[in-house]
Amino acid sequence: MKCRICGEPASISLRSHKTAFCDTHFITFFEKRVHTTVRRYDLIRSDDRPVVAVSGGKDSLSLWLLLTRMGIAADGVYVDLGIGDYSRVSLEKIKAVADTIGRKVFIFHVPGIFQKDIREIAKVLRRAPCSACGMIKRYVMNRICVEKGYDLLLTGHNLDDEAAALFGNILYWKREYLWKKDISLDEDEGHLSRKAKPFFLCSEREVAAYAIISGIDYIYEECPFSKGAKTITYKNILGNLEEASPGTKLMFIKGYLKELKEMKQRPGRTGIQPDEISREYCEVCGYPSGGGMCGYCRTLQKLEIPYSAEFEEYG
Amino acid sequence: MKCRICGEPASISLRSHKTAFCDTHFITFFEKRVHTTVRRYDLIRSDDRPVVAVSGGKDSLSLWLLLTRMGIAADGVYVDLGIGDYSRVSLEKIKAVADTIGRKVFIFHVPGIFQKDIREIAKVLRRAPCSACGMIKRYVMNRICVEKGYDLLLTGHNLDDEAAALFGNILYWKREYLWKKDISLDEDEGHLSRKAKPFFLCSEREVAAYAIISGIDYIYEECPFSKGAKTITYKNILGNLEEASPGTKLMFIKGYLKELKEMKQRPGRTGIQPDEISREYCEVCGYPSGGGMCGYCRTLQKLEIPYSAEFEEYG
Repeated sequence: MKCRICGEPASISLRSHKTAFCDTHFITFFEKRVHTTVRRYDLIRSDDRPVVAVSGGKDSLSLWLLLTRMGIAADGVYVDLGIGDYSRVSLEKIKAVADTIGRKVFIFHVPGIFQKDIREIAKVLRRAPCSACGMIKRYVMNRICVEKGYDLLLTGHNLDDEAAALFGNILYWKREYLWKKDISLDEDEGHLSRKAKPFFLCSEREVAAYAIISGIDYIYEECPFSKGAKTITYKNILGNLEEASPGTKLMFIKGYLKELKEMKQRPGRTGIQPDEISREYCEVCGYPSGGGMCGYCRTLQKLEIPYSAEFEEYG
Repeated sequence: MKCRICGEPASISLRSHKTAFCDTHFITFFEKRVHTTVRRYDLIRSDDRPVVAVSGGKDSLSLWLLLTRMGIAADGVYVDLGIGDYSRVSLEKIKAVADTIGRKVFIFHVPGIFQKDIREIAKVLRRAPCSACGMIKRYVMNRICVEKGYDLLLTGHNLDDEAAALFGNILYWKREYLWKKDISLDEDEGHLSRKAKPFFLCSEREVAAYAIISGIDYIYEECPFSKGAKTITYKNILGNLEEASPGTKLMFIKGYLKELKEMKQRPGRTGIQPDEISREYCEVCGYPSGGGMCGYCRTLQKLEIPYSAEFEEYG
């Protein structure tokens, strides 16, 4: 197979786009697609001050690098969950990219604050690690935006992530999530800062190719707690359907976005509703809370640790 | 495992209902569930004159028998597509049940009318056999209702059929079908007669068990043209998900019905729209048409056969 642009041997074939590229022209193609997505869905505006949530994986590091190449300077924020080597190596990879692109990264050390790693915190809270992690991450992301003046939080969620999550939400018609998932969320909807996912329409395979060709040294391992998660089953199902009918995942997600857009134009309960947005604030830290103390502060209280939410600044 | 009712050894375990039954109590359980569905969704009213679309398979024959047991007398209608032994054996099974329950069945012989079987007709029309079959069946079902005064057409579609079709419609967000699928369709929506699917919430496995325990002699083979259909892939996927999480299919379909109901209460385009219902009638036969001649009459014209739509009456 040959590159559609230059005719040299292709290094990646994209069946869902019925095309193939050499390394160089794949990078051009991929960046152009992300650029188009960003513009079409108005994800990043010229006066935005964005921050990228980085994990050390291919998605967030690719996004961080790609933004720099697009002329969008963004700092990073990392939540160190204290999961042994996994967290340590992730941070190393992040620092290496931060050095390369010359941007700062704010590091929130969970074990430093809570004197426990995420597994131990989850135990204390009697929640699954992923649930405790989500609660802390949401808090930290809100916090970094307010404290450092960022008005847009960017995440590296890709098409496969989104399609798998949507699959689960539709399979069980989880109305609390279903029509609330979107490529971007307004300030109000996301609490405190806008959120956007520029890789919403890029497959995991495409993002991985972008990372590898760009020479990004990312952490290959998935979080050890993600094992056996249902989303992995859904990713496999969608992967098989994609194999049989290339383009399936993209049609699934694009069709959803179209449906969502039309539904939002009709009166009724679609998307995040005003009455679902917390107008209550935590009595300890002042951040949004479902009432009384927020989850973050309740966790600290349970552990008998005084309030703190400091970031280490690197770069 | 023991029967939940009598404690005798169970012959069927229903993981999605977290229960098990002996033959006798499974029949009671199944009939009660169908009865509840019929009542809850107002599928069959006391003054209805229903007709059952029978194919010779487990679903339609079980439905026909079950209705009789519920005290709902219904005739049957069968479309003989002329698919060799498959059609011949199907009709034999249907006649046997008709004899048992003492009801009439109207038989529409495709080869008798068109002087060709469905495969040859599809070729002439340059359509897939399933598409030609669908067109003729819809016509014949309308016709039998009007001609013989039935106001409700019942079909044996089961949970697995409906879940697989819904799966495909959502995967590609087929808006022309998605929010139009329902457990029942009004006169207007279905053209000429109401339609209802009493087995909408019963799994294929449950219906098969009902047929076998009831001693119904049905045709095991699927239609030879259904081979390789995408719905079979979707059925397998949903089957695997059901295996891992019993109740998945039922939650998928019930969640959809709930979503649909709420959407129908909101203004906008959900369900079949008034402007989508044909108010034009075929210039030859007078039945609903998209304009000019209907598909049935156009097919006859193409084959240079004068109009006819006779039924054989058995029983």
